[in-house]
Amino acid sequence: MSHERVTRAQSLLGTLGVDGILVTNGTNRRYITGFTGEDHAADELSGEVLITANGVYLFEPKTNLPWAQAEAYEGVEVLPQERRWTDTVANVIIEQGLRTVGFEDATTTVQVYNNLVEALDGKGVELRPVGDAVDSLRAVKDDDEVALLQRALQMTDEAFVAAERRMRVGMTEKQVADIIREELRNAGSEGEAFDTIVASGPNAAKPHHSPGDRVIEEGEPIIIDMGALHQGYAGDLTRTVWFGQPSEQLVTIYRIVQEAHDACIANAAPGMTGVELDAVARDIFAKHELDQYFVHSLGHGLGLRVHEAPSASSRSTDTLEPGHVVTIEPGLYFPDWGGVRIEDVVVITADGARNMTTAPKRAIDESLTGELS
Amino acid sequence: MSHERVTRAQSLLGTLGVDGILVTNGTNRRYITGFTGEDHAADELSGEVLITANGVYLFEPKTNLPWAQAEAYEGVEVLPQERRWTDTVANVIIEQGLRTVGFEDATTTVQVYNNLVEALDGKGVELRPVGDAVDSLRAVKDDDEVALLQRALQMTDEAFVAAERRMRVGMTEKQVADIIREELRNAGSEGEAFDTIVASGPNAAKPHHSPGDRVIEEGEPIIIDMGALHQGYAGDLTRTVWFGQPSEQLVTIYRIVQEAHDACIANAAPGMTGVELDAVARDIFAKHELDQYFVHSLGHGLGLRVHEAPSASSRSTDTLEPGHVVTIEPGLYFPDWGGVRIEDVVVITADGARNMTTAPKRAIDESLTGELS
Repeated sequence: MSHERVTRAQSLLGTLGVDGILVTNGTNRRYITGFTGEDHAADELSGEVLITANGVYLFEPKTNLPWAQAEAYEGVEVLPQERRWTDTVANVIIEQGLRTVGFEDATTTVQVYNNLVEALDGKGVELRPVGDAVDSLRAVKDDDEVALLQRALQMTDEAFVAAERRMRVGMTEKQVADIIREELRNAGSEGEAFDTIVASGPNAAKPHHSPGDRVIEEGEPIIIDMGALHQGYAGDLTRTVWFGQPSEQLVTIYRIVQEAHDACIANAAPGMTGVELDAVARDIFAKHELDQYFVHSLGHGLGLRVHEAPSASSRSTDTLEPGHVVTIEPGLYFPDWGGVRIEDVVVITADGARNMTTAPKRAIDESLTGELS
Repeated sequence: MSHERVTRAQSLLGTLGVDGILVTNGTNRRYITGFTGEDHAADELSGEVLITANGVYLFEPKTNLPWAQAEAYEGVEVLPQERRWTDTVANVIIEQGLRTVGFEDATTTVQVYNNLVEALDGKGVELRPVGDAVDSLRAVKDDDEVALLQRALQMTDEAFVAAERRMRVGMTEKQVADIIREELRNAGSEGEAFDTIVASGPNAAKPHHSPGDRVIEEGEPIIIDMGALHQGYAGDLTRTVWFGQPSEQLVTIYRIVQEAHDACIANAAPGMTGVELDAVARDIFAKHELDQYFVHSLGHGLGLRVHEAPSASSRSTDTLEPGHVVTIEPGLYFPDWGGVRIEDVVVITADGARNMTTAPKRAIDESLTGELS
């Protein structure tokens, strides 16, 4: 009997009205087949998948065959790639007499598309872009996936607490990032879900900052954004912390960001759109006349990828459903001074949202717990 | 004055006979602009580059702007992306009146291509695929790059030696991989250039194997493939080691692989094709009637990417030049039993090749040094 995900992938054929779907998105490949090999780059894939009514086929280079065969789900047939993998895919399409084949235009390169057209020349096969239809299979998490994500988040929280204990005034951002990576490993993580961010003082004005040699001082904001990885599932956590006495501005901004953060978690519920959830934070910032400093979106889905559906942003087209796992990460950023971001992760339930994050929010030396929590 | 890489990128315009080149390959983006942000996936780039006679433009999301501005080379202008980054690119193309614009078809997705065509609708701009023309800028390394690669390889070698000292019979592959990752950090590496491979016993029959819970026993082959990362440049090293007395088959196979390995290093020289270098190893294996067990190519270029030009394989179209940095990694793999692979890295010189790798080749307990080296 085929794995449940194989069957669900095949059910897409009917939904999309196609005879086959070529999957070039590496995360979708892993989700559907169970094979954990990762793509090196857009032009260096670790395999491709063709979904047809007859089966789900995973095409792999010779070097990956035993590995892929060992991991592939029931119902997935692993086939060796020819010199050009598009030739192998074309052969299956022709053998099975498929007429209309969907492809993931967001991840299929022009070169691959042209090679496939060439290999199918004269066979009358229509190639049809299917956008993110296959990604959408991953948006709602089943209980097993929620458990894996919960474990990844727990490792993240544990590593944060352990790293915080080892942080000292005068360390550089890089040193703190190294400690975090070590503690992620200690907590059982497979690695980092993304490059750890440690942004101190004025660097905290950059939502994405690569930890550098800047020495961290007292009283300034330190934004830490980190995530464990557990069986491929990503954790994601942001805390803004500081040493000693926080500056007045830090206290003011921190309270406003926390207000927005708490309001989003209290309001998140199924049926709400991604735009509406984002607006909960944006409206609170607007009330304080600070919305122009909220330069990114509120949150994103979390799963096998750090950024996936649904999106919680002013441009989102998604509506929240039970089983969606979403980050809530409002932030305010001021060039020259710095910034504050606070991020928890929630799972949407039947009637609201459950906060999956347990990491504490407080000053590093805990002296301000009462004042700020 | 513009950075030398910016000028070289602009010189491609004349070579290719185009007015502009859109760069979607993340490694090329880093090489040309200096911006170190990495792509999350083919549909989640960390920026794009447009090369024109007037300048080199780096398009970034708002969240990356300060980071990109801090890192960009002299002569690179960082511009904020609009909602669809293809609109921003199209605007520059139209403003500057470009008629023919090259694009990297190996990394540009169909969706991006279609969006760009739409944004340029009616403007009479021709989009022309340029294959890997931009990648080719990276193939020959200058002295600074060779020094960075040498440092990455030195860290890799140091970490291997340190890890080997800590390996014990009865450890699992995963435990050994964890030790290696720790020693890579200790050696100063930014992380792993790729997922470390530890493949023991029958698992060593898989050229690409994800370290698992298998307990390592005496006498069987253990393939370790690992690489440090230094300022983005990748190390790459493979050693086959064992505990205690090696099996007879291991001794036989090891000697043959080492023979092929040494012959390739002795013969590598400018003017030789990638096919010829690969054939040096393949012919030796054929002499032993074992060439069917050499299931991958001999080697690949090494730089900001673990796999780049030139390729040393039976399908390579490259010819070796001074400044090429190439892996030499012959291997033999036998299902059920295991395998052996030995990998060093060489830089092609004016009249031959210099071995950049210094890691020892020997049994873990050194008892067999004399017999096998």
